[in-house]
Amino acid sequence: MSGPVSGRRPNLAIVGATGAVGTVMRDVISTRPDLWGQVRLIASARSAGRMLPVRGKQVEVRALSAEAFDGIDMAMFDVPDEVSAEWVPVAAGRGVIVIDKSGAFRMDPLVPLVVPEVNPEQAFTRPKGIISVPNCTTLSMIVVIAVLHRAYRLREMFAASYQAASGAGQPGTDALYDQMAAVAGDRTIGQRPGDVRAALATAGVAASAAPASDGPFPAPLALNVIPWAGSLRLDGWSSEELKIRNETRKILGDPGIKISATCVRVPVVTGHSLALHAVFGQEPDADEARKLLADSPGIVVADRPEAGEYPMPVDVAGTDPTVVGRIRRSMDDPHALDLFVVGDNLRKGAALNAAQIAELLVSEAGYRLQ
Amino acid sequence: MSGPVSGRRPNLAIVGATGAVGTVMRDVISTRPDLWGQVRLIASARSAGRMLPVRGKQVEVRALSAEAFDGIDMAMFDVPDEVSAEWVPVAAGRGVIVIDKSGAFRMDPLVPLVVPEVNPEQAFTRPKGIISVPNCTTLSMIVVIAVLHRAYRLREMFAASYQAASGAGQPGTDALYDQMAAVAGDRTIGQRPGDVRAALATAGVAASAAPASDGPFPAPLALNVIPWAGSLRLDGWSSEELKIRNETRKILGDPGIKISATCVRVPVVTGHSLALHAVFGQEPDADEARKLLADSPGIVVADRPEAGEYPMPVDVAGTDPTVVGRIRRSMDDPHALDLFVVGDNLRKGAALNAAQIAELLVSEAGYRLQ
Repeated sequence: MSGPVSGRRPNLAIVGATGAVGTVMRDVISTRPDLWGQVRLIASARSAGRMLPVRGKQVEVRALSAEAFDGIDMAMFDVPDEVSAEWVPVAAGRGVIVIDKSGAFRMDPLVPLVVPEVNPEQAFTRPKGIISVPNCTTLSMIVVIAVLHRAYRLREMFAASYQAASGAGQPGTDALYDQMAAVAGDRTIGQRPGDVRAALATAGVAASAAPASDGPFPAPLALNVIPWAGSLRLDGWSSEELKIRNETRKILGDPGIKISATCVRVPVVTGHSLALHAVFGQEPDADEARKLLADSPGIVVADRPEAGEYPMPVDVAGTDPTVVGRIRRSMDDPHALDLFVVGDNLRKGAALNAAQIAELLVSEAGYRLQ
Repeated sequence: MSGPVSGRRPNLAIVGATGAVGTVMRDVISTRPDLWGQVRLIASARSAGRMLPVRGKQVEVRALSAEAFDGIDMAMFDVPDEVSAEWVPVAAGRGVIVIDKSGAFRMDPLVPLVVPEVNPEQAFTRPKGIISVPNCTTLSMIVVIAVLHRAYRLREMFAASYQAASGAGQPGTDALYDQMAAVAGDRTIGQRPGDVRAALATAGVAASAAPASDGPFPAPLALNVIPWAGSLRLDGWSSEELKIRNETRKILGDPGIKISATCVRVPVVTGHSLALHAVFGQEPDADEARKLLADSPGIVVADRPEAGEYPMPVDVAGTDPTVVGRIRRSMDDPHALDLFVVGDNLRKGAALNAAQIAELLVSEAGYRLQ
């Protein structure tokens, strides 16, 4: 895109249109204000020619290539890191503004890492023509933490995550459904070491189908929690845990914040949850924090435990807001709050945040807004 | 029990013998060294007359009454708090040493709170004839934390729990199995707000059975996590969260340790997990901590993420040790360790710890040890 083009709607490409996030991107683009000229669907050559729905009609998927970006103004990428690393620069080199969901460029100092509720202004300085979208786990809590940071100045945070299967894409969702079917109905399972593993291995035998596999996970997820997400980094940390630390610091613009995270996969289809212990420079007040959060865009407060009201994946999956509750001042540290946050990892955690950035750029570019 | 009685084996009562923990108590007593004369099973009047297996034979369940303790030397209670509050003093008043799993006496300064690997000596000072067993969530991590406390002196801890359904007793386990059966096989569920709730409500209709209920939980547990366990206490804290704080301080003998916990129920049958961030007075070393833990009784270290090895409920359920892994020094605080711990909430978290205390007392009393 060479600059504002008044009177013409921008053309948008969705790259990775067939994946779990790509599916939600098509859904999000089909239900938010329609700002777009053409919406082009791009995926791997394997999916080329498939017809997929977007904005109420079937659109043919094109294979990823340099030419696939001809005539495109903006592209939202949700593809593996190595695919982004190769193809994002190709698209950006052809003048396309790229909003990239992968981890390939997030920590590049010349690429802004944007959450529209937190640092929208950074979307307008993009020396490489690339804007990165944070990891889904970071996105499931950052809108809430940013409000508290502005009010009380975050100094230290401990996060423990409860991450959904769909955070590992469609293969993650598929694996959990397979495993649920394999273990359900057996009222003895989950009580002896290895019995869940054995049930998955033998499930297919009886049904004359393939055994239920671990899918993209390193262990069974049904009736289990797996304290691992991503790949191994230095000193035993997982890549997912370092993302929470490094991305939070970059988005909040303070590399001095101390952050430790433990990332854990749980048998939930959609909705990443985090238990947070946040220590601030100023003393927070729980009631005031609740009010500040309730008054902030993109946030819903669900915090009446006396009425059974707290944030939970079963209520948050398929919705846009980050939901926060269990807000309480630490009993032993007047500078700390404990809280619980849930966000839809496919919507705000990925597709919605990308679409919000794209909409922000449309307004910047002065395109006709309908 | 009026004192050591050499040559006679002590008679043991299991009170609450029909519950989830009572069942494991019978199992534990049947598989550990057999130190006992009579093993008497006691439960509510409703269960009186039932025949249940213990030590390889069927034993008739007696109704709870003062007379039910005639001839009994030691009793392990696992009953609701209010039942313990009424009946533990009755048994103790008749000279029975009571090992009580309920919350009724844990914070009583005249009642020791005992974990045999941590503070066995306290079992021998029991002014009321009562010894309390910690909450299952505290017990799932305290053996590990106590080793680190001895080495590095714990000053502060944040805990986020991943608690199994069986922590809420047999009704919790039953509810999770019902719910798993109600949602399994539907490959669209868990992606829209309320769809899990709707599936549970309508599950029974098709099968001409009752709908799957939430059971003892305040929301569906299948495909969900519930950031709530126990009852509401001051300032939004749950009773379960305060137990972790108060019991850890009492067991470690240091009321100055700062502790915040967030307790969350997850769709796991058995095995409580905790993500811990622990800050120490002395700088810990991860390798040294791993070695100290591996050399300590009751602990297994599972910490080779490069080989997919970390503690998980599917491997720990039905076993005795507390399993610890993901041990790493915090990147931003040389005084802190992050780690992940899993323990069987019915075994070490309840029945096993009670049996270990009983065995300790047998050795004290000088009974014939076979």
